[in-house]
Amino acid sequence: MNRGPATAVLPPIADIGSFHVGGVDVRLDGMPARELTVVPGSPVLRIEQNGDFVAWQVYAQYVRLASPTCPWPVVFWHGGGMTGAAWETTPDGRPGWQRLFLEAGFDTVVSDAAERGRSGWARFPQINLDEPFFMPKGEVWRRYRIGPSEGYASEPAQRRGYPDGRFPIAAFDNYARQIVPRWTGTDRQIANGYRALLERIGPAIIIAHSQGGGFASNAALQHPDLVKALVLVEPGGVSHPQAIGDAAGPPVPTYFIWGDRTEGDAFYRDTRKRSFDAVDAIRARGGEAELLDLPALGITGNSHMIMMDDNSAEIADRTIGWLRSRVVR
Amino acid sequence: MNRGPATAVLPPIADIGSFHVGGVDVRLDGMPARELTVVPGSPVLRIEQNGDFVAWQVYAQYVRLASPTCPWPVVFWHGGGMTGAAWETTPDGRPGWQRLFLEAGFDTVVSDAAERGRSGWARFPQINLDEPFFMPKGEVWRRYRIGPSEGYASEPAQRRGYPDGRFPIAAFDNYARQIVPRWTGTDRQIANGYRALLERIGPAIIIAHSQGGGFASNAALQHPDLVKALVLVEPGGVSHPQAIGDAAGPPVPTYFIWGDRTEGDAFYRDTRKRSFDAVDAIRARGGEAELLDLPALGITGNSHMIMMDDNSAEIADRTIGWLRSRVVR
Repeated sequence: MNRGPATAVLPPIADIGSFHVGGVDVRLDGMPARELTVVPGSPVLRIEQNGDFVAWQVYAQYVRLASPTCPWPVVFWHGGGMTGAAWETTPDGRPGWQRLFLEAGFDTVVSDAAERGRSGWARFPQINLDEPFFMPKGEVWRRYRIGPSEGYASEPAQRRGYPDGRFPIAAFDNYARQIVPRWTGTDRQIANGYRALLERIGPAIIIAHSQGGGFASNAALQHPDLVKALVLVEPGGVSHPQAIGDAAGPPVPTYFIWGDRTEGDAFYRDTRKRSFDAVDAIRARGGEAELLDLPALGITGNSHMIMMDDNSAEIADRTIGWLRSRVVR
Repeated sequence: MNRGPATAVLPPIADIGSFHVGGVDVRLDGMPARELTVVPGSPVLRIEQNGDFVAWQVYAQYVRLASPTCPWPVVFWHGGGMTGAAWETTPDGRPGWQRLFLEAGFDTVVSDAAERGRSGWARFPQINLDEPFFMPKGEVWRRYRIGPSEGYASEPAQRRGYPDGRFPIAAFDNYARQIVPRWTGTDRQIANGYRALLERIGPAIIIAHSQGGGFASNAALQHPDLVKALVLVEPGGVSHPQAIGDAAGPPVPTYFIWGDRTEGDAFYRDTRKRSFDAVDAIRARGGEAELLDLPALGITGNSHMIMMDDNSAEIADRTIGWLRSRVVR
């Protein structure tokens, strides 16, 4: 393995491992068995397709430090069309947020939402009722504000980003390799899987991106005992201000992060406004809330994939600073 | 997070991260766009389904020790219907082979085959030509020799294993949570993905299970410069003795591991015999080959999932002993 230049050694690590948790038991009947050659040259197998399945379980990979500086782990929830890989190394090979938070002394849990990545997926239409959708590279480029629409080209050398764009576009194809199919009708199942994850690991700080932000925001409302803080990176949805106002417990401390060029897209205009409204609602109840509005600070060019942009380490530092001053006291 | 009893701290770790590599560029045309609500309450999005995709890329997660005791990493290739999670913590929470090999001083790379886990999967029938198949729990139980066929029941409390069975059957449902759909027509694509992985990381020791064994065996034949040793755990296929005999370079040192109760199933009888034939072919060319035939040593009750069985740590120790005496010298 190319070991490259010497890097800082991570803090002593007590354990690395993973588990699956949650999911729903499903029984299927009435499908014909399939005859398949599963390994070239080996006997044909008759494989039963009926029986017991589990659907919408959740995979989580953990790293436990020997001496963490925070009593709770950070749990990373990815956005739509992605997996936990989004939090690992950046597409151009820089340390991802998983590593940066380990360096800062946090235990980490990197999970895959139900029906993504190592969580597996259940057959459709028998279990997942609708069809998944698949985002072509050009859609990923445009929707995630990697560069201007007209800047996308099939040929990497012909792609053009924004003059001040921060996404490492030379590594865009590496990012495209981590995009996975997703469903839209599985929000309840994903939320249930994440609840099982939180119940398994106990109180945690959730760092969630995009689609994951809605699940994190709702988890904080419904299980405030299990959520010590939220970091929401361009959350695709957050709980309604009314729900935050009406919640039983005190609001969970929340740090919102928003990048550049959100005004040209109805989806981002809408979801960004919901973040601002949530800040007001949390503060109105005496809670801690802060919104890191990068363009307002003169930090331009951030895409939707802030944890992959060229200033991802700086944003992680700011986030860790907020957690240290407002949560881990 | 439940930190449990104090465990041994791992050797100092220089880096933890991941990457995607390989895959084939595919262009789709002629499909209608879809209108979807991707986040509850947010505007409907019109999502283009045509354009550029990458298919059959490979995900790999690496842990690099500060001072490894072996110059090459071990790369773990899982079996059919599984992901790299098979090598992490066992379903009943004991250290998996990833951790055991880290403790022994090896860098580790845990990968997901193309179309499994975090490698993602391409739509069918447009890109993957056939349909995936899904194994119900009862099939997993029977085919992987977890217990007798009639010992499977939907209700965990009613399941009965073999009297001497070594699979942790109380945790069988945790194992079932890590089963994922798979295709049968993608062998060439999976092999190409794994070749890209080896080219990226350089010479490695491959530890492969079941279906992964065929890919590993062929990789050793085709790229002997990139494969320092093979550990094949109940390989589903190994290269034909003739091909081993005719290969250009010297045979790659290979350690085969076989568990119990293979004689009652045509698939295992056949694939096990191919392992014995491969040992003969490797030795006939002056190469190193050993077959750890557990029942012949009086070690009974191992399932197909040897890295999860109750003696998984002992089998890892034996494997590490063989690597130290025959490969890392």
